[in-house]
Amino acid sequence: MPHFDLPLDQLREYRPEVAQPDDFDEFWAGTLDEARRHDLAPAFEPVDLPLTGVRVHDVTFSGFGGHRIKGWLTLPANATGPLPAVVEFVGYGGGRNLPHTHLLWATAGFAHLVMDTRGQGSGWGTGDTEDPVGSAPASPGSMTRGILDPHDYYYRRVFTDAVRAVETARSHPLVDPSRVAAIGSSQGGGITLAVGGLVPDLVAIAPDVPFLCHFRRSATLTGREPYAEIARYLKAHRRHEEQVFRTLSYFDGVNFASRGRAPALFSTALEDMVCPPSTVFSAYNAYAGDDKQIEVFSFNGHEGGGPFLQDTLLHWLPQRLRGRAASTA
Amino acid sequence: MPHFDLPLDQLREYRPEVAQPDDFDEFWAGTLDEARRHDLAPAFEPVDLPLTGVRVHDVTFSGFGGHRIKGWLTLPANATGPLPAVVEFVGYGGGRNLPHTHLLWATAGFAHLVMDTRGQGSGWGTGDTEDPVGSAPASPGSMTRGILDPHDYYYRRVFTDAVRAVETARSHPLVDPSRVAAIGSSQGGGITLAVGGLVPDLVAIAPDVPFLCHFRRSATLTGREPYAEIARYLKAHRRHEEQVFRTLSYFDGVNFASRGRAPALFSTALEDMVCPPSTVFSAYNAYAGDDKQIEVFSFNGHEGGGPFLQDTLLHWLPQRLRGRAASTA
Amino acid sequence: MPHFDLPLDQLREYRPEVAQPDDFDEFWAGTLDEARRHDLAPAFEPVDLPLTGVRVHDVTFSGFGGHRIKGWLTLPANATGPLPAVVEFVGYGGGRNLPHTHLLWATAGFAHLVMDTRGQGSGWGTGDTEDPVGSAPASPGSMTRGILDPHDYYYRRVFTDAVRAVETARSHPLVDPSRVAAIGSSQGGGITLAVGGLVPDLVAIAPDVPFLCHFRRSATLTGREPYAEIARYLKAHRRHEEQVFRTLSYFDGVNFASRGRAPALFSTALEDMVCPPSTVFSAYNAYAGDDKQIEVFSFNGHEGGGPFLQDTLLHWLPQRLRGRAASTA
Amino acid sequence: MPHFDLPLDQLREYRPEVAQPDDFDEFWAGTLDEARRHDLAPAFEPVDLPLTGVRVHDVTFSGFGGHRIKGWLTLPANATGPLPAVVEFVGYGGGRNLPHTHLLWATAGFAHLVMDTRGQGSGWGTGDTEDPVGSAPASPGSMTRGILDPHDYYYRRVFTDAVRAVETARSHPLVDPSRVAAIGSSQGGGITLAVGGLVPDLVAIAPDVPFLCHFRRSATLTGREPYAEIARYLKAHRRHEEQVFRTLSYFDGVNFASRGRAPALFSTALEDMVCPPSTVFSAYNAYAGDDKQIEVFSFNGHEGGGPFLQDTLLHWLPQRLRGRAASTA
Amino acid sequence: MPHFDLPLDQLREYRPEVAQPDDFDEFWAGTLDEARRHDLAPAFEPVDLPLTGVRVHDVTFSGFGGHRIKGWLTLPANATGPLPAVVEFVGYGGGRNLPHTHLLWATAGFAHLVMDTRGQGSGWGTGDTEDPVGSAPASPGSMTRGILDPHDYYYRRVFTDAVRAVETARSHPLVDPSRVAAIGSSQGGGITLAVGGLVPDLVAIAPDVPFLCHFRRSATLTGREPYAEIARYLKAHRRHEEQVFRTLSYFDGVNFASRGRAPALFSTALEDMVCPPSTVFSAYNAYAGDDKQIEVFSFNGHEGGGPFLQDTLLHWLPQRLRGRAASTA
Amino acid sequence: MPHFDLPLDQLREYRPEVAQPDDFDEFWAGTLDEARRHDLAPAFEPVDLPLTGVRVHDVTFSGFGGHRIKGWLTLPANATGPLPAVVEFVGYGGGRNLPHTHLLWATAGFAHLVMDTRGQGSGWGTGDTEDPVGSAPASPGSMTRGILDPHDYYYRRVFTDAVRAVETARSHPLVDPSRVAAIGSSQGGGITLAVGGLVPDLVAIAPDVPFLCHFRRSATLTGREPYAEIARYLKAHRRHEEQVFRTLSYFDGVNFASRGRAPALFSTALEDMVCPPSTVFSAYNAYAGDDKQIEVFSFNGHEGGGPFLQDTLLHWLPQRLRGRAASTA
Repeated sequence: MPHFDLPLDQLREYRPEVAQPDDFDEFWAGTLDEARRHDLAPAFEPVDLPLTGVRVHDVTFSGFGGHRIKGWLTLPANATGPLPAVVEFVGYGGGRNLPHTHLLWATAGFAHLVMDTRGQGSGWGTGDTEDPVGSAPASPGSMTRGILDPHDYYYRRVFTDAVRAVETARSHPLVDPSRVAAIGSSQGGGITLAVGGLVPDLVAIAPDVPFLCHFRRSATLTGREPYAEIARYLKAHRRHEEQVFRTLSYFDGVNFASRGRAPALFSTALEDMVCPPSTVFSAYNAYAGDDKQIEVFSFNGHEGGGPFLQDTLLHWLPQRLRGRAASTA
Repeated sequence: MPHFDLPLDQLREYRPEVAQPDDFDEFWAGTLDEARRHDLAPAFEPVDLPLTGVRVHDVTFSGFGGHRIKGWLTLPANATGPLPAVVEFVGYGGGRNLPHTHLLWATAGFAHLVMDTRGQGSGWGTGDTEDPVGSAPASPGSMTRGILDPHDYYYRRVFTDAVRAVETARSHPLVDPSRVAAIGSSQGGGITLAVGGLVPDLVAIAPDVPFLCHFRRSATLTGREPYAEIARYLKAHRRHEEQVFRTLSYFDGVNFASRGRAPALFSTALEDMVCPPSTVFSAYNAYAGDDKQIEVFSFNGHEGGGPFLQDTLLHWLPQRLRGRAASTA
Repeated sequence: MPHFDLPLDQLREYRPEVAQPDDFDEFWAGTLDEARRHDLAPAFEPVDLPLTGVRVHDVTFSGFGGHRIKGWLTLPANATGPLPAVVEFVGYGGGRNLPHTHLLWATAGFAHLVMDTRGQGSGWGTGDTEDPVGSAPASPGSMTRGILDPHDYYYRRVFTDAVRAVETARSHPLVDPSRVAAIGSSQGGGITLAVGGLVPDLVAIAPDVPFLCHFRRSATLTGREPYAEIARYLKAHRRHEEQVFRTLSYFDGVNFASRGRAPALFSTALEDMVCPPSTVFSAYNAYAGDDKQIEVFSFNGHEGGGPFLQDTLLHWLPQRLRGRAASTA
Repeated sequence: MPHFDLPLDQLREYRPEVAQPDDFDEFWAGTLDEARRHDLAPAFEPVDLPLTGVRVHDVTFSGFGGHRIKGWLTLPANATGPLPAVVEFVGYGGGRNLPHTHLLWATAGFAHLVMDTRGQGSGWGTGDTEDPVGSAPASPGSMTRGILDPHDYYYRRVFTDAVRAVETARSHPLVDPSRVAAIGSSQGGGITLAVGGLVPDLVAIAPDVPFLCHFRRSATLTGREPYAEIARYLKAHRRHEEQVFRTLSYFDGVNFASRGRAPALFSTALEDMVCPPSTVFSAYNAYAGDDKQIEVFSFNGHEGGGPFLQDTLLHWLPQRLRGRAASTA
Repeated sequence: MPHFDLPLDQLREYRPEVAQPDDFDEFWAGTLDEARRHDLAPAFEPVDLPLTGVRVHDVTFSGFGGHRIKGWLTLPANATGPLPAVVEFVGYGGGRNLPHTHLLWATAGFAHLVMDTRGQGSGWGTGDTEDPVGSAPASPGSMTRGILDPHDYYYRRVFTDAVRAVETARSHPLVDPSRVAAIGSSQGGGITLAVGGLVPDLVAIAPDVPFLCHFRRSATLTGREPYAEIARYLKAHRRHEEQVFRTLSYFDGVNFASRGRAPALFSTALEDMVCPPSTVFSAYNAYAGDDKQIEVFSFNGHEGGGPFLQDTLLHWLPQRLRGRAASTA
Repeated sequence: MPHFDLPLDQLREYRPEVAQPDDFDEFWAGTLDEARRHDLAPAFEPVDLPLTGVRVHDVTFSGFGGHRIKGWLTLPANATGPLPAVVEFVGYGGGRNLPHTHLLWATAGFAHLVMDTRGQGSGWGTGDTEDPVGSAPASPGSMTRGILDPHDYYYRRVFTDAVRAVETARSHPLVDPSRVAAIGSSQGGGITLAVGGLVPDLVAIAPDVPFLCHFRRSATLTGREPYAEIARYLKAHRRHEEQVFRTLSYFDGVNFASRGRAPALFSTALEDMVCPPSTVFSAYNAYAGDDKQIEVFSFNGHEGGGPFLQDTLLHWLPQRLRGRAASTA
């Protein structure tokens, strides 16, 4: 895939106007309030695995609507805490997968909680979390479920689940609640941005090739899945364009970015037609935190930096923890 | 597309064993009983259209779970009844569309009711009917929603809606309830087969290139949508193969075909990789009615006979009505 | 498909220079004169169909060179006239199809004549009209047949047929000749533009995603059929570029648009790579009539507005007829 | 491309029944008689080229209907004759191309005449010969032009042109008429087979990956062009299957093969989806001559043996000429 | 992708004859002897990584020709040995990748050595090992480098490297040399089979969707990379078919399988067009060990069982170690 | 393929800055010096072919590192010399092919030497020349072999071979060394540019759709092979971008063009996505010779002008020879 988006020097200055509804903050405050009326009820069930280096727990907690959301919590085998924690969100179509697939952060000395994405998890990885909410007519996939009203929109539920996942991680006795970071790739990066805008006291966020940014542009710039679900919906529902983009404005990563303050490590790839670099830079350039940087991979597509980015993150994240004594110390 | 399935002479003799659960009839009797506990409550709202040759009504009725299902009823402008009726079900991904797109049967002197398919209608045609039921993790699309349990499976709701759609047509004062036929192409053909097996007194059915037949074969014979959704689900959920096919056995068109008695006009196309001819012949050869025929289109894909089949149907269906005096006469 | 052409605000102002031969008007005046030397000899043969709401006639008339051209005339079953009429031209590769596929306009109270396109009609719909004229070496398809000389070019014959089709409609006793509109999609839209420029007294035209506009741009902007036939021809015939585009300048929709005066409803779609929006706007912005509008579908490809556009047209066209008393009244 | 057709050992025994009309020989005798009523009128115009090793003539002769057909005659520069001659027919979509592209056979000491294919020559090579005959509705391309009647069918004209091309070669003063061979690849191979069946006294034929064999099988075995044109035509014209295959039976290479007697070198490739090996073996196994062989290329597609086959042919053909004294000697 | 190979019941019985050269064992004995004349010279350089749960060493050893081959050795952080070990070989095009990408087996209590594949490692993962040997003309990729002579063939070097990698693992002071297993997916599975046939005393092998089996069949059954490299080579080198397959017979996984005795866990996937199931079953059914099993994934392609197979392997492998006391104990 | 690069008027002015290392000339002077330390040792072995118009010799000479390189020398059968000569280089993936495939230039009265490309020749034509040099990890294909260091880079060897090929042609007794031209298409055009920059006294060069120009742009403008090999390499080796482009700067056709002085006929095609027109114009506009021209094919892809360009060249090249008496005269 050749370079198809703006040249890098223009990307670095790209600050488009992205629609933001007046009641954006009220909408989200109300949404989280409503979710918190349900007891979080975090459960951590030990999983019996033939692994000696880590301990894994099957996690369940109450997300949006009190619906029970799954995850895995992985700890270094001999940890006594308090541990810094990484909460991770996964890419579109995947789920929490099998527990032995998440070893990196526990091996690096962190508590690691990966959240299942409701209703997904039948693509590249399996999931175990139901989305009990139905939908008006929608395109195949999650992107347009409930898209005619922000209150019904699928990602309202997911972003709320994600905030609650951070709270779940913080509730674990071995986790130091003052040293929690959020990370994720693609959809996981989009959720990370949302969490970064909704949870004020994270120690760091790392949105990798984030999805769900600048919908107006992404829906017309790329024909690749899953942004294509929006265009496919509007191809049929020809008279709903404004209504759809109004809904999406409540979920745009650019609007969450302008509210984020935690140290942030973004990444993007110049051949990424799934989450085009200009949509990532839209969020990065809007990001409100001072300590921010973006890794640019010139010849990669949506796979982005892959293990090279992990390597960078393995060094970057501990630096953000230094000087932050464990809260219980 | 070349011919890829069995040769025609073998297709004509193809009678595979298709799994049938012992409680198939109980399952469906119970399902319909449950649905009928909700008041059908058919509503026929006149639609103001710049059409002088037909009158169209916006239809709403209670389907599975009492959920309100939409449709269009189209009548010859000057009809005084009682009219024979055609109830039509639509293809995968589509909806009832705009009302002026359904003129054929009213122009031919029939009452015509097209049923919206719940949750669909964002593909080639628009729909207006919500599916208020959520789902465990599923592949994008409708095919695997609730697939781990026949009670939760998406098509349990759709087939029930379809039976109720026939009842809705029969409830209209201008319709002769003893002269109702069911037709449809692709998914609409699969639904037609189900209705033919569940509603005992139809005057005719016409499943055109029907979908939803012989799932075991179709899931491994073709990589085309929407059967591919099953394979895609099992690609992730590697340990659920038996559970999935057990569920599907309650919805297999072959099992409905062996219960159908109404005169039937099937069709299939030898280059159809979406609904392969052997899966259609599986149902056709199992069909229990005496008055049955199948139109075979040698060089067509899933578009099948198109207007040529309509032409055949326009002549075949009236022949099935002859000798059947209008019931109210 | 993402947006690939100019942004909408630039499209609205896009007025490229399109080559126009000095003898354009003479060429067409001479061509039509020549055709009219043959007796039009319109024949309307009733067709026996199992349809009660309409009456259909198998139409034959003399087009270019006196060659006999086919069509269907569909009338409301009980019409006594004089009726307003819609003459429709069809898309590339198709034909007049079977008669029951054209019910919309008769159901709306119009006489409807659909013209078969000579030599085509073996693609998505069948045709019945021979093109008795051979050709110098040409690419597969109709686009380059006779392309080295405007007198030999395929569309010289087709556009002439189309003018004669309007005259045929007007010749029918139930048609009011003062209230005839021309419509069509894609190739049918291109023919509509030509007819709009060649027939002075139409009541309205509606070119939908019209083809055959601004050949210089379309041949280099899109690789999709059927414009690609031109590029494919020139790929082989490397020394004939100027000769080819000279021929095409006699057939460019932009040049017909600048001669059209009837009220006009254009449409285009921003993802249409078959008939790119800038080529449609080239014609629209050049259109000489005062009463013109263009429907823009943001997330559609060449399918354009489909039933939504039909719905608009069903309301727009009758408004153009008001105040126009039937000529025979 | 993997092997997709019968295994090689079955191919060697593959002798399918191919339909042959009773009046096959009468049809062709009548056709050739009719063509010969027109004066052949061969013209050989010297071409001025910057080539010192060969002399090229621009050839024109009367083919079917007396239509003037083009070709190039290439001779060794210093030839005094009588020379053995190779008449070559070209692949689908191509033409006689530019004259310097045909040097092999003159460099090998032969007179070489390449025939232009009427109406083609806008694909991979240019042509200069008009096909002045029009057509009923046909698919894009040559394959279905006039396909509803053997008398109207395109290849009736082409095969007749080809027989006349051999006569043209023989008419040249430097050519030894008793030592003329016919060769060609793909469509050129199909024409070679026809010529081999229609011209009794050729010294050799070499059909390379021949097209136009066993239409019933090829039309359903492969979806590749140009056989696909037949299927595409029948996809629209659903009721003409028998009529189409009846026409094609007059043009089937298998029926010409069973009439050929000249020494023959066939070739085929096991990955050839354009002209599948079973269709080639259908002709090869039916070939009536005693001196026949077939080169099989196991890992090639339609490119077949390419230069390797040429190399074989450069040795094989001279062996067939030995013992044949020049007729004028 | 639909099922395209033999049905499962036939696969279970599929025992094709695969060519085996008479001097197969001598060839390999000589090859390994030659390699062992070079000092293995294993080097284990500690790598500084921000990982607390494991210790990683940068490994270098002498493979074929004494060339220095790279790898990573990953140990549980606090291991004191002797540890059972897993030696892993990687898929085509990849390399040893970054060290933090190999955490599973060390986390499960094993020593884990992953071998870099010479000359590869520029595809999905990076490599660091040169292949200093040049090649006669070859297709892009590794598959046909040196393919005209078994002594020059690329995989002679790679399989030798792999045997030496096992010896390297055994040389480490924390590894128990009597408890070493070999595993790998795709190309890694093919190398595993070779190692299983060449190293007599492994504790287990696990070839996952193994590549490099039954070349005669795979080269004609699938058009997918990398088997396609063979066909592509022969497409050009039309006269070298026998020579190529003679070379490949020295490297066929089926021939190594018939020499393997260690407990073995194979896997295959029925939609795998890269390493078709019949080629895997060719090796599995020929496998000489008593303790063998094969995991069959019905709806997967070349991704095979993925984490589900890892899960099975995490339980299966420790069972093979039981009763095997650590050799140093 | 539509036009995708700059419009033609901008192409004509396109003069980008292309990186040029300070020691470019030293690098190449040293490289050629080193190669010339090996005896050229040209060998011309007559080949026995059934061709009477030409004499062909199997050529071998010492290229880079003294490695023996193959070629064919083709002469008019009765030539007595001294002849002007054309040295030709071939496209990517091909080889010198079989000798009878190179007849054009000998037929035009030239000596013609075609050079085999080391290690290639397993694609569209066969080759016979080994590349005995191995490589660090590289993408499949030749483009990234040794790419981390200009001394190791594959094209250092090939360009050196090419200079030696010119010297080989000049060494033949029938060749006039003062009248030697270099030509080639695609990769052959890139090599031609290099030779034009490295050999001072050529009589003409003709780089046709040349490859290997302006790597920075080509690697990001097109996703087509073989430029894509660079991007694919960097997709894995994410940290080597600068090192890779530094190496390539020693091999960029633009840098050779600015050193070329011989009369030059370039060509390019506006739909060429393999060697995009802007990369060709980068070299053309930088070309230092006064007598230069470029043929632009508006509707062609990478096939470029094909026989039309050959025709132009057959006239252009002799004009450059006029006034140049044979050096031995």
